[in-house]
Amino acid sequence: MSSEMMDYKTIRDEKVVEIEKILTAYLPKEEGFQKIIMEAMAYSLMAGGKRLRPMLMKETYEMFGGEGDLIEPFMAAQEMIHTYSLVHDDLPAMDDDDLRRGRKTTHVVYGEDMGILAGDALLNFAFETAAKAFDMYPEKSLEIGKAIQILGKKAGIYGMLGGQVVDVKETGHQVEKDVLDFIYAYKTGALLESCMMIGATLAGAKPEEIAIVEQIAAKVGLAFQIQDDILDVTSTAEVLGKPIHSDEKNEKTTYVTLFGVEEATRIEEEVSHEAIGLLRSLPGENAYLEWLLNSLIHRKK
Amino acid sequence: MSSEMMDYKTIRDEKVVEIEKILTAYLPKEEGFQKIIMEAMAYSLMAGGKRLRPMLMKETYEMFGGEGDLIEPFMAAQEMIHTYSLVHDDLPAMDDDDLRRGRKTTHVVYGEDMGILAGDALLNFAFETAAKAFDMYPEKSLEIGKAIQILGKKAGIYGMLGGQVVDVKETGHQVEKDVLDFIYAYKTGALLESCMMIGATLAGAKPEEIAIVEQIAAKVGLAFQIQDDILDVTSTAEVLGKPIHSDEKNEKTTYVTLFGVEEATRIEEEVSHEAIGLLRSLPGENAYLEWLLNSLIHRKK
Repeated sequence: MSSEMMDYKTIRDEKVVEIEKILTAYLPKEEGFQKIIMEAMAYSLMAGGKRLRPMLMKETYEMFGGEGDLIEPFMAAQEMIHTYSLVHDDLPAMDDDDLRRGRKTTHVVYGEDMGILAGDALLNFAFETAAKAFDMYPEKSLEIGKAIQILGKKAGIYGMLGGQVVDVKETGHQVEKDVLDFIYAYKTGALLESCMMIGATLAGAKPEEIAIVEQIAAKVGLAFQIQDDILDVTSTAEVLGKPIHSDEKNEKTTYVTLFGVEEATRIEEEVSHEAIGLLRSLPGENAYLEWLLNSLIHRKK
Repeated sequence: MSSEMMDYKTIRDEKVVEIEKILTAYLPKEEGFQKIIMEAMAYSLMAGGKRLRPMLMKETYEMFGGEGDLIEPFMAAQEMIHTYSLVHDDLPAMDDDDLRRGRKTTHVVYGEDMGILAGDALLNFAFETAAKAFDMYPEKSLEIGKAIQILGKKAGIYGMLGGQVVDVKETGHQVEKDVLDFIYAYKTGALLESCMMIGATLAGAKPEEIAIVEQIAAKVGLAFQIQDDILDVTSTAEVLGKPIHSDEKNEKTTYVTLFGVEEATRIEEEVSHEAIGLLRSLPGENAYLEWLLNSLIHRKK
């Protein structure tokens, strides 16, 4: 491991601590007759994780010269949306998972009814949190409005939720490449696009620059998913921390089942190369962001 | 029935038709691999109903001199939020209802997983829909931002969802008056407050006027709920269209169990009187809105 990589990992860990402080600050106080729902929201939001989405948002914001705390309510809102999707995915009627990152899932701790309501509460509170920016910077209301549009679109039926719908619908079926690309782009890519686009928008980036960061995020999201497909057949359960060959077992269509490992690897490299090329074409500079995107693409687990 | 009442009922029916046109216009196109979720959203949103919330919003908007279509995305958004709450309330883990207004509930038609996702989709799309106003009237971005803050707060843990949480938590228990008031104020009152406050906000009403319409809606919501409690013991199943004495059967705490019919009626009259008094204290005038609020308070079913 080079010392530069070592440094970036230390920086990343420090950034995670900073982000968790912001998330905690934006969580609702645990009080009132409805206190249990605030507890369930905190339980699910503060369950650890890489905090990749708020990190991507902040780094993009800074790359375009954004300063100050305008970005913070959106960082918290985006992580709340990511978390609500996990809480609802884990429900008995969906994936029926009892554990996530080694902890009991929200509906196991609080009951299935409160699990549904906690997800709803996080989604709703995400928009309330983002909308706090109007009080902080009323003179930036139009930019904040644009950022809320992105937050909504990329989380909903034209984003993450749309991908989830198709993934649920096609579970157990072989799918064509266009359907697989849809699921990857919407279910995973859309929130990454949201993060980078909101960061750019709130920093005052030009429309053509926002369009470029959308492309970068889409390509990183696709490379991330293809890497997932490749690791499932080339890694070991020890390194991956979960069973390998699970896609074959579940008869899932992946880039590996469609193209084989070699061609999937070539596609991933091409897409990654395009993403980094686009990032370098932008006026600002953020070496840490380039490292972060590369670490996502080339991750080993 | 007086001819004036007859006229108002005809006007109301015409207004419902207009509102349903607006709802239809703001629904997403049914297309793409995720088409099934748009179908489920339309199925639940266009299931009939009194369209009371968007109607209250528009009438308040007009009372304060609001003109044009700025209010329309918020009317649609508010009805989407009301509808998502019904879709999730009907789920097996919640009230487990198979029928609503004589039609199969959303999860019965589309499956439980799609029922959860359709509710999520409607809540998310509500904010996307409201945020369309930034494109329509960018010069009003700050007012639109304030309206989105109200929409979020009154639907979430400090509004409808907070009331639902306490209602679910206390099901089967006797509760004190302060808990009952909380449930009534939050579960029912909050969305009515949202409607009238958004209407006033987008019409450019003063903060003190917005505070008054919030009080009016809160009082109308409470009177509506007390009337519900009274009808359950004084009406007939024929008039009410549902079984009577259901509160007693379910051992529910109500204004009637706490105070008896006579005192509950007196409280309701007092609260209603205050609501109408506050309405008349406002500068604008809207005779239809006064009729509408009275019809809610004094309804027979």
